[in-house]
Amino acid sequence: MVEYEDASPEVRAVYDDIMKTRGTDLINNFWKALASHPPTLKRTWESLKEVMAPGALDPLTKEMLYLAVSVTNSCEYCIASHTAAARKAGMTDEMMGELMGVVGMANETNRLVTGYRVPVDERFKS
Amino acid sequence: MVEYEDASPEVRAVYDDIMKTRGTDLINNFWKALASHPPTLKRTWESLKEVMAPGALDPLTKEMLYLAVSVTNSCEYCIASHTAAARKAGMTDEMMGELMGVVGMANETNRLVTGYRVPVDERFKS
Amino acid sequence: MVEYEDASPEVRAVYDDIMKTRGTDLINNFWKALASHPPTLKRTWESLKEVMAPGALDPLTKEMLYLAVSVTNSCEYCIASHTAAARKAGMTDEMMGELMGVVGMANETNRLVTGYRVPVDERFKS
Amino acid sequence: MVEYEDASPEVRAVYDDIMKTRGTDLINNFWKALASHPPTLKRTWESLKEVMAPGALDPLTKEMLYLAVSVTNSCEYCIASHTAAARKAGMTDEMMGELMGVVGMANETNRLVTGYRVPVDERFKS
Amino acid sequence: MVEYEDASPEVRAVYDDIMKTRGTDLINNFWKALASHPPTLKRTWESLKEVMAPGALDPLTKEMLYLAVSVTNSCEYCIASHTAAARKAGMTDEMMGELMGVVGMANETNRLVTGYRVPVDERFKS
Amino acid sequence: MVEYEDASPEVRAVYDDIMKTRGTDLINNFWKALASHPPTLKRTWESLKEVMAPGALDPLTKEMLYLAVSVTNSCEYCIASHTAAARKAGMTDEMMGELMGVVGMANETNRLVTGYRVPVDERFKS
Repeated sequence: MVEYEDASPEVRAVYDDIMKTRGTDLINNFWKALASHPPTLKRTWESLKEVMAPGALDPLTKEMLYLAVSVTNSCEYCIASHTAAARKAGMTDEMMGELMGVVGMANETNRLVTGYRVPVDERFKS
Repeated sequence: MVEYEDASPEVRAVYDDIMKTRGTDLINNFWKALASHPPTLKRTWESLKEVMAPGALDPLTKEMLYLAVSVTNSCEYCIASHTAAARKAGMTDEMMGELMGVVGMANETNRLVTGYRVPVDERFKS
Repeated sequence: MVEYEDASPEVRAVYDDIMKTRGTDLINNFWKALASHPPTLKRTWESLKEVMAPGALDPLTKEMLYLAVSVTNSCEYCIASHTAAARKAGMTDEMMGELMGVVGMANETNRLVTGYRVPVDERFKS
Repeated sequence: MVEYEDASPEVRAVYDDIMKTRGTDLINNFWKALASHPPTLKRTWESLKEVMAPGALDPLTKEMLYLAVSVTNSCEYCIASHTAAARKAGMTDEMMGELMGVVGMANETNRLVTGYRVPVDERFKS
Repeated sequence: MVEYEDASPEVRAVYDDIMKTRGTDLINNFWKALASHPPTLKRTWESLKEVMAPGALDPLTKEMLYLAVSVTNSCEYCIASHTAAARKAGMTDEMMGELMGVVGMANETNRLVTGYRVPVDERFKS
Repeated sequence: MVEYEDASPEVRAVYDDIMKTRGTDLINNFWKALASHPPTLKRTWESLKEVMAPGALDPLTKEMLYLAVSVTNSCEYCIASHTAAARKAGMTDEMMGELMGVVGMANETNRLVTGYRVPVDERFKS
């Protein structure tokens, strides 16, 4: 993991942009780990910044989608960091409960559909 | 797959409730497949009805979360049916594009985090 | 896919053993595909034969476990072939319904556990 | 996590039913975590109780199916709790070894099938 | 799916760069689908171009890694397109057989490790 | 976990072959865990030895493929042990960075393909 003090100018420029964009003076371990390969750090940050910016979907919705994927993938770090980010963006206990309800149910019915080899209904074909 | 005409009273009662709740006179193949085991049909429908009802999260957000999970799980039927449901609930092309952006990026960073074995930051520990 | 007529002696020996072990004169497409790389064909068949032989668990239980994994992995071919095998070994509609109930529920609670980051209870630590 | 002492009457009613159904006076961390959203706690427990009850499949087979799914999903908590439950229901070291053999082999062949894009044999089509 | 003839200048610029970079006059369906949301098209292509360029790893190794991931994720389209790309980059039947051997075995042992809850050896801790 | 001192002759024979083949006097925890069911230990080791032997693909490529699968499956132990093995076989920081780039990107595009339900191009069929 590369700390700010030990970072090359290329890595520092990314760290500076992360801190400025997020209004914080902390760099998560995720970025410090990616910094062992600066091109991956830079590319990943720039994509993430673009994807998570407010657009047709608001930031809370985006964070909850991120969390839904991370839970489905069982990514512990991602669940921890995006639960924190979703909380900061306004997710309440009840919203979390409903999100988990949908995520759990979707994982259940995905398998029922697959296991029973259900053919796609004509009207759902794009 | 069990058609309405061939269904037992127990299965028909579930089919009737699905059609009434959704304001439609169509039963998807998913429910017709589950009907080969009535207790699974009944339990799954009652859970799904409860989970997808409007609450702290609105129906469009719930459908998009369902879709994000289904894409992550590569469930073709589920993607087809929940894309249709999300469209009906108001999802535009641009919202779909942003949803896919978040889902793709989350799947990417989930693996980067895992592959680099990034330790959870202290402040993310609940 | 390698048909019996076109197979090398090495591949034929495996095909013969499959047919003899299973009491059938049909070779599934799976083995015909693996035959493009004979060492993979041979190693896979020998492992599978050993693993699926009757032992502390009976053949139906083994087929149902195979099916549960294949459903969780969304492997269409595997679901089709192992549903057929489980049916042949005695799986009824009701057993299939209960199996799918367990598989669906396990996939649901696996995500609830992960999403809420539930710590392992002391008494479950081996 | 919600302890019994701090639980609302609605949550306590579920805890009481869990303890009575299982003949124990311990509540796992899983249920204490779900209790942060009582409707999810209640719905999940009622579904699980129905799914895991003895039926066409015996309790040990159901626990082993649960474990096979949990291993395939890499859910650490679920593996720990359902290994304990399967042991309690009679799973020996040898049965565990055979279960793991089937789970491992199924995960291997699922990928071989998928990677070689094996078409489903006519006779396996439902 | 957006065909070249119907594409906006922004989308055409990406299509032109894909054809030029790959020395082909064909655009895969993948890009035509992404073009429904131009920012996702542009960002994905630019990232992919950077990631797949020759570097410390040669193009064949990169294509085989891509294929290994796609097989593990059961992504049919991805397996089809990246098998074609790997073949074009020099993958023989024997290399494909060995790749599938490693992918299958890794998926098997991944589950054995997880199912037996094997603790990480001290010397493997980074 | 079965230590060498406590192992049966059957288990010791496998341990001896592992140490001889790898030129080491250490047995990883993985093998010690499998030893609780000797047939699984023996079968797994013999398959792995065959699969990972030098062939049409060199050992470093095989280790990187193993790692790519393990990262996609989020198998912590496997990532730790195969990162160590790949390093020993010559993987540099830059190669690791490019490997992670491909693995991350493949996981992202796999979902984009699936979510947009992209039909396979004619020329990619078999």
